[in-house]
Amino acid sequence: MVPFYITPLNERWRKPLAEKIDNLTKPKGSLGRLEELALQLGMIQQSLSPELSNPTNIVFCADHGIVDEGVSFSPKEVTYQQLFHFLRGGAGISFVCQQHHFTLQVVDMGVDYNFPADLAPTAPMVEYYSHKVRMGTDNYLYRPAMTHQEMDQCLIAGAAQVDICHEKGCNIVSFGELGMANTSSSSIWMHLFANIPLVECVGAGSGLPTEGIRHKYQVLQQAVDNYHGDRSAEDLIAYFGGLEMVAAIGGMLRAAELHMAIIVDGFIMTACVLAAAQLHPHVLDYCIFGHCGDESGHKRMLDALGAKPILNLGLRLGEGSGAVCAYPIIQSAVAMINHMDSFANASVTKYF
Amino acid sequence: MVPFYITPLNERWRKPLAEKIDNLTKPKGSLGRLEELALQLGMIQQSLSPELSNPTNIVFCADHGIVDEGVSFSPKEVTYQQLFHFLRGGAGISFVCQQHHFTLQVVDMGVDYNFPADLAPTAPMVEYYSHKVRMGTDNYLYRPAMTHQEMDQCLIAGAAQVDICHEKGCNIVSFGELGMANTSSSSIWMHLFANIPLVECVGAGSGLPTEGIRHKYQVLQQAVDNYHGDRSAEDLIAYFGGLEMVAAIGGMLRAAELHMAIIVDGFIMTACVLAAAQLHPHVLDYCIFGHCGDESGHKRMLDALGAKPILNLGLRLGEGSGAVCAYPIIQSAVAMINHMDSFANASVTKYF
Repeated sequence: MVPFYITPLNERWRKPLAEKIDNLTKPKGSLGRLEELALQLGMIQQSLSPELSNPTNIVFCADHGIVDEGVSFSPKEVTYQQLFHFLRGGAGISFVCQQHHFTLQVVDMGVDYNFPADLAPTAPMVEYYSHKVRMGTDNYLYRPAMTHQEMDQCLIAGAAQVDICHEKGCNIVSFGELGMANTSSSSIWMHLFANIPLVECVGAGSGLPTEGIRHKYQVLQQAVDNYHGDRSAEDLIAYFGGLEMVAAIGGMLRAAELHMAIIVDGFIMTACVLAAAQLHPHVLDYCIFGHCGDESGHKRMLDALGAKPILNLGLRLGEGSGAVCAYPIIQSAVAMINHMDSFANASVTKYF
Repeated sequence: MVPFYITPLNERWRKPLAEKIDNLTKPKGSLGRLEELALQLGMIQQSLSPELSNPTNIVFCADHGIVDEGVSFSPKEVTYQQLFHFLRGGAGISFVCQQHHFTLQVVDMGVDYNFPADLAPTAPMVEYYSHKVRMGTDNYLYRPAMTHQEMDQCLIAGAAQVDICHEKGCNIVSFGELGMANTSSSSIWMHLFANIPLVECVGAGSGLPTEGIRHKYQVLQQAVDNYHGDRSAEDLIAYFGGLEMVAAIGGMLRAAELHMAIIVDGFIMTACVLAAAQLHPHVLDYCIFGHCGDESGHKRMLDALGAKPILNLGLRLGEGSGAVCAYPIIQSAVAMINHMDSFANASVTKYF
């Protein structure tokens, strides 16, 4: 498997950062999560004055063989249609990226559609890349979604996309996904990696009714029952993964390796972090959880990771939208530590 | 009492706005709170394309006679010191206002300090106004905090500050406060207006330890027991109010009268909305609740109002900081309704 070298946060930065934050002109702790975020960013960047630069949202896109089993409310064609839509702007992820000046990387990892060779974005600050590994995964009800070699290709491609934005000065990256039926892979990973009964991991996705959720659960339970591999993290990732999801794992691991902050989006990206942490637990040190989505089980998975999401707005769109929405709060944390006066220079009684 | 004329939202806008939102390229409801915020703003502005302009945070400042009873962890001098600090920039509210391009109005309603006549802000986008009604309130353990005439002066002054920003094109306003011991007035209003036992309304404020919270509760219970007025909303507002809090009520009522959106800050401003709604219930139609603070009882009070706050970041700074922090999420809602494609013009299967 592709190697990554991820170091834990350097604990030597914790005390000086905490002291700086505690000496800002406010009751101690009264800026809550902003204080925690400033501390984490300072430790990631090993700086008393962390900065955010060139934020990028990378949306990996691919299709899923399991979609043939009727586990998704949305038809498969939506994957390629939405990829085109991202390139034109106007999608859900488009307006939040524009609002917060994110570069949007749209990456084809395996959409089951032949895009034209000269495909190019028309919207500003959007980039398109193709790493098509195959035309969607195999149906993991019967066989592995991908080979281990294909998994490695996806990890390498995801890491390469992070290298691209890192070289352009990006130090904070979010990941999103597009792929009909990818909540199914997420539910299975959640079940297997967090030891939560599968039935509690399965939800409505893009809009299944109750009967559809029951069917989805039955299909996924059968898929898990049919699995007879070695139950190692890497085999479970390859067997049940989506190509776009494995690419996100590669991107997250590379971002942590490069000491970049990672903003985690919703249910699917949280499942990817969970999987990534099976391989390299310290990837979590670099993760800022953007939001708790509305998909059943997301809160449960966040709890399993000990994660405190920034937002709780009932979003369930994917695409990285919840992560990018949370960005201004992270900016507030940075503004706090860099621009707020300390008691020493503000002539305010240290009343707290 | 000063009259205000507040109309409920015009229900005729609900259906066309909901239709526009449901036809955006996303699973129905999948942008959660953003969809609700866009609907509310559209109804407030009676527009299918609501816009936000010239946001303003008005911080009303005053001292409280009850501070003599040892109910506040912070000494009274912090009120005037922080007012100076706001004018220089560098306070908690300063960095979030700068981040989100808010004008910051700092308004002396009754700080117990003689500010120089030529006092002027040195930080950009900060304005200073004086409506000093008196040098802080009386101690309501023994007598009314202010007269009804003084209450009216505060309501008028608060409304006048909203007129100032409205005339400059502001259509969304948040309110904040500065005044040592003002969580005490808030706790009493919460108790009396929401019928919640006083002991559940009293918290740590800027940092009281457990013993201090018990003492604060005992003082406030005695103050409530000593009250023998007519229990009308206006008498309770005058008797237990802070000058800055009554000004905020006047500002909120005026903003609703002018069909402006109101972003509600933390515990104290929520108590002011609760009081304002006793006078004019439809003020709530114009309120967007910015955050659920860390002060004990805030969540309980929000629940009593049926309010769903945007953020839940453990903030307890006051000054309007939680409201201004929530602003980019409101901007996201506006960006969604104005800039996201509909299914009709995006060539995406209406898959939801």
